[in-house]
Amino acid sequence: GHAHAEVLALAEAGARARGADVFVSLEPCAHHGRTPPCIDALLGAGVGRVWVAMQDPNPKVAGRGIAALRAGGIEVDVGLMAAEALRINRGFVSRMARGRPFVTLKAGISLDARTAMSSGESQWITGADARADVHRLRADAGAVLTGSGTVLADDPQLSVRGLEASAREPDRIVVDTRMRVPISARVWADGAARRLWLVGGPPTQCPKGVEAVTAATTEAGHLDLAEALRALAEREINAVLLECGPQLAGAFLQQGLVDEIVAYIAPMLLGHDARPLALLPGMERLSQALHLQWQDVRQIGRDLRVTAVPIPA
Amino acid sequence: GHAHAEVLALAEAGARARGADVFVSLEPCAHHGRTPPCIDALLGAGVGRVWVAMQDPNPKVAGRGIAALRAGGIEVDVGLMAAEALRINRGFVSRMARGRPFVTLKAGISLDARTAMSSGESQWITGADARADVHRLRADAGAVLTGSGTVLADDPQLSVRGLEASAREPDRIVVDTRMRVPISARVWADGAARRLWLVGGPPTQCPKGVEAVTAATTEAGHLDLAEALRALAEREINAVLLECGPQLAGAFLQQGLVDEIVAYIAPMLLGHDARPLALLPGMERLSQALHLQWQDVRQIGRDLRVTAVPIPA
Repeated sequence: GHAHAEVLALAEAGARARGADVFVSLEPCAHHGRTPPCIDALLGAGVGRVWVAMQDPNPKVAGRGIAALRAGGIEVDVGLMAAEALRINRGFVSRMARGRPFVTLKAGISLDARTAMSSGESQWITGADARADVHRLRADAGAVLTGSGTVLADDPQLSVRGLEASAREPDRIVVDTRMRVPISARVWADGAARRLWLVGGPPTQCPKGVEAVTAATTEAGHLDLAEALRALAEREINAVLLECGPQLAGAFLQQGLVDEIVAYIAPMLLGHDARPLALLPGMERLSQALHLQWQDVRQIGRDLRVTAVPIPA
Repeated sequence: GHAHAEVLALAEAGARARGADVFVSLEPCAHHGRTPPCIDALLGAGVGRVWVAMQDPNPKVAGRGIAALRAGGIEVDVGLMAAEALRINRGFVSRMARGRPFVTLKAGISLDARTAMSSGESQWITGADARADVHRLRADAGAVLTGSGTVLADDPQLSVRGLEASAREPDRIVVDTRMRVPISARVWADGAARRLWLVGGPPTQCPKGVEAVTAATTEAGHLDLAEALRALAEREINAVLLECGPQLAGAFLQQGLVDEIVAYIAPMLLGHDARPLALLPGMERLSQALHLQWQDVRQIGRDLRVTAVPIPA
């Protein structure tokens, strides 16, 4: 709903935009949405040449922006740093191409892959640098999703802290099929963020400013997560960071709804009684394993951060 | 029991050794052990200067080799690449300084830190490159230790394969408190390797060529692992690679007898029913966690290899 980057950049450049090279990570829009078309702004500013990293996957744009620029006499180059642009735009691309947000599962684990002691004690397994990195993940995703169990146990804020003032507060989404989360939960606290309550039936006493979103429930009484994600995409949520317990994490994984796993591995062992990373019921044979591909490994403070992508079965 | 490196190198160099610079990773010995003193060979060859990376921790040597060389008119420099030498000699240093071998725990795990399905199925979790790397670990350690449970379930050979012909077959050690491992087990197969049977009482029908080593048992009926390691050191075993199940791995860890963990992390998830890396009974509070320090992380084929060192409590 805000002005697009092209309009903001042209306003900042002023007269210097005339004849300038313009580099954009996504094709400029050619249609009237909530804001006027960006190509009008580019043509009006008299820019010289436009480098478009990737075509817009939005069917309302899909090449029309590039065509309109060329029709206006501007030279357009498409594809510079396309892979990097796809990475930056992956949330938007996911919503446009698949009708659901890009889903990242975040986990803070020990080397033996435990997220908390059996008592629930988990402060702190990962170090301060890893926790700061999670705030960056939240801001980048733009939305954080958790389950009612985590809210009832930990009452998290799911806000971003320690980042620059311009960092966006992520939308807060709670899967709460049976509507157990109280109005007083900190996740519902008023602020800049949208708050969405994913429930399995007509909501009772919805907290002020919170949008209740009803999705179907499965025979087992769980929320239909694919439908819930579609509902989020309809509300223009491009990307979601999962910060939830092992049951919800496992459900997203087993339904093939996780696009990326970011695991912070703390240098410790917590033992076999501690809580697992994910519950994956029914996994009995090695042939049923969920396969991943490593994307990135680095040290974040005293922890390791491993990024992996599930390989579709 | 074999000729020391100095003697072998001097034999290979022949007359070229006269006046040469000699670089050794450990102080040359000055005493008659199973072989004559190395300093006699060095003095006899008329070498020029000797660079000793580190003093020998063996109290029978402990500076006497360096002193004898200097008394023979040879210039000796001590300390070049001392840290690297300590790494190479860590098994020998451990045996000399602590009276027990250097202990490395090897684990092949999924990202959710499981070593096998609940059925025991585990072929293969890690990839071919990681398995080849384990053969290198075995050869480097010189001895592999496992438990009776692993032998009875998997009947492993614990040999080295795919390495150069000079790679030493590791000694094979089986912790078998109640003497359950049969004579027909592949781990007892005849070959170049020593075979040691760590038992909790007078052994019955010891397999041919296998040395039975009796250690005390704890009240819980487990072998006294510290005593067992001392017995291995007395038999000149410098380093041991643990390739065992979660119970024995956990016992070594909880008794502070692990010096290094090498975990191969395969890009997959096996679920909460699969077998854990280590059983650590009684660990209920985060303050009881076993803390580690990362030493090295790298990709081995499609897996990650993480090396960590336990931090003493």
